[in-house]
Amino acid sequence: MILGRVYGSVVSTHKLQSLVGSKFMLVQCIENNKLLDKYLVAVDGVGAGIGEDVIIAQGSSARMGMSDKNAPVDALIVGILDEKQV
Amino acid sequence: MILGRVYGSVVSTHKLQSLVGSKFMLVQCIENNKLLDKYLVAVDGVGAGIGEDVIIAQGSSARMGMSDKNAPVDALIVGILDEKQV
Amino acid sequence: MILGRVYGSVVSTHKLQSLVGSKFMLVQCIENNKLLDKYLVAVDGVGAGIGEDVIIAQGSSARMGMSDKNAPVDALIVGILDEKQV
Amino acid sequence: MILGRVYGSVVSTHKLQSLVGSKFMLVQCIENNKLLDKYLVAVDGVGAGIGEDVIIAQGSSARMGMSDKNAPVDALIVGILDEKQV
Amino acid sequence: MILGRVYGSVVSTHKLQSLVGSKFMLVQCIENNKLLDKYLVAVDGVGAGIGEDVIIAQGSSARMGMSDKNAPVDALIVGILDEKQV
Repeated sequence: MILGRVYGSVVSTHKLQSLVGSKFMLVQCIENNKLLDKYLVAVDGVGAGIGEDVIIAQGSSARMGMSDKNAPVDALIVGILDEKQV
Repeated sequence: MILGRVYGSVVSTHKLQSLVGSKFMLVQCIENNKLLDKYLVAVDGVGAGIGEDVIIAQGSSARMGMSDKNAPVDALIVGILDEKQV
Repeated sequence: MILGRVYGSVVSTHKLQSLVGSKFMLVQCIENNKLLDKYLVAVDGVGAGIGEDVIIAQGSSARMGMSDKNAPVDALIVGILDEKQV
Repeated sequence: MILGRVYGSVVSTHKLQSLVGSKFMLVQCIENNKLLDKYLVAVDGVGAGIGEDVIIAQGSSARMGMSDKNAPVDALIVGILDEKQV
Repeated sequence: MILGRVYGSVVSTHKLQSLVGSKFMLVQCIENNKLLDKYLVAVDGVGAGIGEDVIIAQGSSARMGMSDKNAPVDALIVGILDEKQV
């Protein structure tokens, strides 16, 4: 999994039927407490809000966290970060 | 998922039978509102036109959005971008 | 697989139900005996401790090492490194 | 999918039984009409020749284009490029 | 697939049960006849020795070449390289 910060969302009226109801969040990747110049779009699986740091699963594992395991989704917010213990 | 801008298409007469009927679009990747020097080929799942910004699913999740879930496709345009809310 | 060193963990109270009980470790990647400026979050499958060097499987293969093979997990610590023979 | 140019092949006498009969092509990746300093090995699914530009599917989607969908193959030439329309 | 040179192995006493018996090889990646500053760990599927150049399958396709297709393995040596024809 990777860590990231939610900074927005994208709206798509014209999309595959299997994606209706999914919320697409804009996420900036975080590594070692630093925001990277690396961004992706992840479906929100946990009700994450703008500015929150989240855990993201990618690839087929993202689909496994959806109610429809065959959804064409390759990145899913699976948890909201409380704290890091280093 | 990643964002990208459709800028063309590719024609392949000689291809696997399971790909006949699929339209292959040339896409330039977008991150943080910037066009990147990064390009890929994605099957069009939503009728995207040249110049439109789209959402792309990759890996096995791309196949899940095809009518044939066993199609040898690893990138699919799953939505057309209306707007970003940041 | 890749090698990495465990340097912490992350706490997420609000996460997908299928992830309850999984321990999320912060891992710094290692290649050729050097710690890289590359980090990821992996579920601990073997009881790895802070400071230990581990073997990590990624993608759908990570899920295959979980008791729930449909868990939305894309990185799993599958072994603790004893030694490298070069 | 990605684009690439076939520039050779590799011979492996000692390989997994499930790969006997597969032809392994050396491919140089192409993005935006430029040959990149990036190379991979792809199984030939369409009878591509040296010097031809091809479309390559990666990951599990590559296997889906093989007669044996469980072949340990992660890159497959799925089409020969006729032309690009930009 | 990618090419690489086997330069060592790793020993892990404490690992997932499904990995017992698998040999983990240290591999340095090769592209265009050059050894790269890029390294990974791959399970040996063909009896590769130190110093040999090999073909590696990654992702779920690696598992497909294992006797246990659900093994948590994301990189497998699937062939030993005899020669390259360019």
